[in-house]
Amino acid sequence: MKLQVTQENLSRALSAVGRIASGRNTLPILSNVLLSTIDNRLKIAATNLEVALTETIGAKVSAEGSVTVPARLLQELISAIPDGVITLELAESRLLVTSDGYESVINGTPADDFPVMPTIKEGVSITIEATTFKKGLQQVVGSASSDDARPVLTAVYLHTYNGSLYAVATDSYRLAEKALVACKDEVSLLIPASSLQDVLRIMQDDAKDITITYDELQARFAVGDVELITRLIDGAYPDYRKLIPEAFKTTAVIQKTDLTTITKVSSLFAREVAGSVTIKIDADSGDVSIRSVASQLGENTARAKAQITGSGDVTLNSRYLLDALSVISGGSVSVNINGKLDPVIIKDPAQADYVNVIMPVKS
Amino acid sequence: MKLQVTQENLSRALSAVGRIASGRNTLPILSNVLLSTIDNRLKIAATNLEVALTETIGAKVSAEGSVTVPARLLQELISAIPDGVITLELAESRLLVTSDGYESVINGTPADDFPVMPTIKEGVSITIEATTFKKGLQQVVGSASSDDARPVLTAVYLHTYNGSLYAVATDSYRLAEKALVACKDEVSLLIPASSLQDVLRIMQDDAKDITITYDELQARFAVGDVELITRLIDGAYPDYRKLIPEAFKTTAVIQKTDLTTITKVSSLFAREVAGSVTIKIDADSGDVSIRSVASQLGENTARAKAQITGSGDVTLNSRYLLDALSVISGGSVSVNINGKLDPVIIKDPAQADYVNVIMPVKS
Repeated sequence: MKLQVTQENLSRALSAVGRIASGRNTLPILSNVLLSTIDNRLKIAATNLEVALTETIGAKVSAEGSVTVPARLLQELISAIPDGVITLELAESRLLVTSDGYESVINGTPADDFPVMPTIKEGVSITIEATTFKKGLQQVVGSASSDDARPVLTAVYLHTYNGSLYAVATDSYRLAEKALVACKDEVSLLIPASSLQDVLRIMQDDAKDITITYDELQARFAVGDVELITRLIDGAYPDYRKLIPEAFKTTAVIQKTDLTTITKVSSLFAREVAGSVTIKIDADSGDVSIRSVASQLGENTARAKAQITGSGDVTLNSRYLLDALSVISGGSVSVNINGKLDPVIIKDPAQADYVNVIMPVKS
Repeated sequence: MKLQVTQENLSRALSAVGRIASGRNTLPILSNVLLSTIDNRLKIAATNLEVALTETIGAKVSAEGSVTVPARLLQELISAIPDGVITLELAESRLLVTSDGYESVINGTPADDFPVMPTIKEGVSITIEATTFKKGLQQVVGSASSDDARPVLTAVYLHTYNGSLYAVATDSYRLAEKALVACKDEVSLLIPASSLQDVLRIMQDDAKDITITYDELQARFAVGDVELITRLIDGAYPDYRKLIPEAFKTTAVIQKTDLTTITKVSSLFAREVAGSVTIKIDADSGDVSIRSVASQLGENTARAKAQITGSGDVTLNSRYLLDALSVISGGSVSVNINGKLDPVIIKDPAQADYVNVIMPVKS
């Protein structure tokens, strides 16, 4: 193997692919990246056995070949070297990395020792505009569960319903649902949320679109020269739609920054009580107030003005409320409540395609 | 106690003083701040028994008093509350914190339970221009030892010599010395480096000067409305001046960014060998090169052009070299070496008042 690449391209690709090559894995070779020449390009690949990521970059290849080297060392080396052309040359399993003023030798491991990278031979594809996908998924993915006890809840449920493609995630305490685009195909995929986080990280801001190709077991996300393949989760997603109320007794429309600030202040006193705060909507005063009481620390009430219909109160986890507020895009939000035990709906009143549901805490 | 302060002033003071109030201390009350009224101002104080820090801010006091409350909770609360006037009022040992829209009660502890804050009754004072002190100490303090086995080496040695005030620190592997200002007094203080780090943190950029007042056991640093008192370290500082060579066989003057980059690149391969790299100055090629060899990872040589007198090489710890480069202010640095076992001197050729010494590693 002998080839030339630019420092800029190689550094960018290694920082994307290198994240997947973790030193925390029990199989030492998984902390390596696989470098291989293909069609006068350089392919850089890594896998953690859950996700496999490859990026191909332009290269001037004068001898074909492949090798694996420690991902972190190569990434740090290439990012520390100044701009310019870098030559990679293989001598047995030693990778020579040279550029103007810099000569390095990295001891590698033969490419044959690397796990076989997964492929999807026959699959169905859908293509979505990159910004729509990225912004939409960022509003949803944080609501998935990190608890493996119920695997389906660690997924984002990407599915079609009434002609639209929806992304949904819930950990059973809160739920986020986003309608992404109109879609004629029948889609029903349970994609690990952690894999989707990786997909979001590799999506450059200038990406045009993303193509998702899937079979029964795996899905591939292709964005520009980057491809990520993940396993799918097997199971039936809960019938969540019946949880989302359609009418409300009490609604407040409030500036998002105001609600965020009063929630943050009250949450400081809620640490003792697992984040529980009581949100009260009062049509008479025109105030939304948030109250927390901690026997040891003290107590707090914070309030802000809102446009209010009806009065009521409900107790919920302030962390879920802050999480929801951090991903809602508009300048104002509506808080919608029914009884003390009914789900609370947080949404941007100007954005009908996105909804956050928070289950109340018994107070 | 009842008083009014601005959110801005209180938040700034709490973030400075709060750092000293650590939750990691075995004495729970040390994670509190002491609030007390004094001369129509509010004094905010904290101590970790090594250092005591107080800041006084303007206040409208309508009832005198004092109390202690958890530092972190108060700091987070005040920083989360929007701009405006905040009223603090004591009801028994409960502190009521109110501002427009926000009402909090923080359970406090009586001020009598707080440790007595140290004072210096009769001491000697010197005053130094704030920027001179801050910039000078930042170039020195990182070279002190963090190992309590030799307490004097955990200090910065502030002393007069030939009519100048010097700050010096060494951990016996490297040393930094800065001549701060002309000084007629006789000064010889061993100030804990960790306390000086706290002093540097409290020095706002607009500070005019700093006054150091000391007796046999303690030193007080006063900057604007902030005062820090630290214990001094007892002992005799090593006679370090004889370690600093005055003439050199080999000298290279090189761009600081170039030397930093080639050192960083080589240090990646030096992890296996405790950071050891060999720096070679070669008058024939006009290059400074840095080489590292790691049996497992691989090896590296990185070079850059320099103005060179004489040739030679020496092996040293790349971390000390990077530390020295990070605090040298100029655009170019000179690297001065004698034999393989002699101290290496790194300095800004345009700045005679500052020197870095690195002891070589036996190679």
